[in-house]
Amino acid sequence: MPELIPGPVEVVGAGLIGTSIALACRRAGADVVLSDTSPEHLRTATGLGAGRPRSEEDRPALVVVAVPPDHLGGAISAALDAAGEDTVVTDVGSVKAAPLAEVASHPAASRYVGSHPMAGSERSGPLAASADLFTGRPWAICRHDGAAATAVRRVVALVEACGAVPVMLTPAEHDKAVARTSHVPHLLASLVAGTLAGAAPEHLALTGQGVRDVTRVAGGDPALYSQIISGNSDAVAGLLREIRNRLDLALDAVAAGDRAGLESLLAHGLAGTRAIPGKHGGPVQPVAAVHVAVPDHPGELARLFADVGASGVNIEDVRIDHDPGRPVGLVELDVAEGRSEELHAALEAKGWVTHR
Amino acid sequence: MPELIPGPVEVVGAGLIGTSIALACRRAGADVVLSDTSPEHLRTATGLGAGRPRSEEDRPALVVVAVPPDHLGGAISAALDAAGEDTVVTDVGSVKAAPLAEVASHPAASRYVGSHPMAGSERSGPLAASADLFTGRPWAICRHDGAAATAVRRVVALVEACGAVPVMLTPAEHDKAVARTSHVPHLLASLVAGTLAGAAPEHLALTGQGVRDVTRVAGGDPALYSQIISGNSDAVAGLLREIRNRLDLALDAVAAGDRAGLESLLAHGLAGTRAIPGKHGGPVQPVAAVHVAVPDHPGELARLFADVGASGVNIEDVRIDHDPGRPVGLVELDVAEGRSEELHAALEAKGWVTHR
Repeated sequence: MPELIPGPVEVVGAGLIGTSIALACRRAGADVVLSDTSPEHLRTATGLGAGRPRSEEDRPALVVVAVPPDHLGGAISAALDAAGEDTVVTDVGSVKAAPLAEVASHPAASRYVGSHPMAGSERSGPLAASADLFTGRPWAICRHDGAAATAVRRVVALVEACGAVPVMLTPAEHDKAVARTSHVPHLLASLVAGTLAGAAPEHLALTGQGVRDVTRVAGGDPALYSQIISGNSDAVAGLLREIRNRLDLALDAVAAGDRAGLESLLAHGLAGTRAIPGKHGGPVQPVAAVHVAVPDHPGELARLFADVGASGVNIEDVRIDHDPGRPVGLVELDVAEGRSEELHAALEAKGWVTHR
Repeated sequence: MPELIPGPVEVVGAGLIGTSIALACRRAGADVVLSDTSPEHLRTATGLGAGRPRSEEDRPALVVVAVPPDHLGGAISAALDAAGEDTVVTDVGSVKAAPLAEVASHPAASRYVGSHPMAGSERSGPLAASADLFTGRPWAICRHDGAAATAVRRVVALVEACGAVPVMLTPAEHDKAVARTSHVPHLLASLVAGTLAGAAPEHLALTGQGVRDVTRVAGGDPALYSQIISGNSDAVAGLLREIRNRLDLALDAVAAGDRAGLESLLAHGLAGTRAIPGKHGGPVQPVAAVHVAVPDHPGELARLFADVGASGVNIEDVRIDHDPGRPVGLVELDVAEGRSEELHAALEAKGWVTHR
């Protein structure tokens, strides 16, 4: 473990995220101690080699609070109460201003620095944990004005030990950022998905890949997301009002047949898709799609990707099309714009039925 | 060609869709004649073997109108004017009530039956065409009250010759269905994407796969989609009002801290995602995700899919994760729920770093 963390790491909450952090710290050579209100989670996590149960004499150099959103403020305060003079406390909750507000008046608040790894899984609990969960992921570090510099450095050391990429943001900036990149998209995806509930099956037969993509995140747990979104209400409400105003403009444009107005709203959306960072954080590269018809059984995908590999063309993205009634799958391969002809020709030569 | 189409097929408009239909009809053995206002498109399509240019003495048994939305009504009427007494006319536009309204009073309206194949590509023009574009896709057939039964049968024969799956809907039902499954999701994806335009780059650094999925369709051409959505304004406006009402409920719930209200909206969305038909039109199967870290160069994906193929576990879906700053790609493999342990073990045995 880096010398910036001169002692054990305690992880409070041995769920998916906590146990994954514990495993990553163990891999980095740290002494990891675990605590959890659930004896079962604790047993599972220690059984996975994520660390040993915390005992009273342990003096952690760093406490990582990884509990559900509702319990963050209390658990951070408790950790600051129990900690020694040199102990730094962080948390990994998905909102940052609300827990800080609960902790800010604590006498040891200077040793608290919140953080938020941008990683997760549809699964939960310690059994789904992995030391690799954070590899290469952004991990926001949200120092408040009163935070000690040594405390910030220790949290940066944790993030780097987990293989993640530190992104420095204030707590307020962080919450605005995730409202925009996560909470509001989730809520709108859910509203769109809601219009499909109870729709006639013969109408849903016309469902294509587009609406499946738009609504995918709405498959997440409503109880968890209502907790997360409620914890970031100011930032979320501000953006929702902005979207409602534009939705009203869209409604007016559609109802009035104002095609130029509608086109301008759609052009604004197009500009937004282009603002999303590309692979590896670089600018988005223009890609072209090559579609390949693939019989729906195991060996065929392997054969396809072997032929793709032999072509030497790098695949930027891949998608398997699930349209109802298809006797074969359709695989979409996205490649750099200048390489699609080459891939197309290579696959046709191997007998694949492709189109662009 | 099926005997239900006793003569040449004429395709009006040799773009992506028209040329693909022509190629599919040629493959089915039909005599195909082409017309287009662009001599270049016509030359390209005939060069691809999609058919021959229409001459004055041709008497098509079926005319397929495949022109941009704005020109549908005029082109269908012109085809009915020019056609012989036995000629059937269809179109493949993405809205159905508006062109029908323009054509309904035509003396030969009984020989018109609109249709709409659920297929396309980000690319356009005849060079992107493929005889396989429609294989296994739903293709809506929208008979109006005055349509002749022989005309409907001839359009069904076309759809089947193209390898697509006929879905019978009235024009009004069709337009409601695509408003729900395509136009409104597109518009909302665009509004969400619009909130990313001009956002601070350090905020966008927290972008994950979720918002990329939600906003992907907003990358489509604003001019084309404003034409499509405007052509279906009644159905779109009705659904937009429904979404705006629920958005107001969401705003109220977020602002008032009404977590139960928010959860109930999210649960409605979850129910909607479960209403989407699954692969091959069957019910949605529960899937589990296995994540695999893959170095970002060509041979590795081939090696992964060879190992997946050897495991015997069928892949339902696949996704390559593009988070900024990742030195390796993360491939998500979705498999039937009961098979994920098996795939996980098989890949770990081959040295892959995986998590669930």
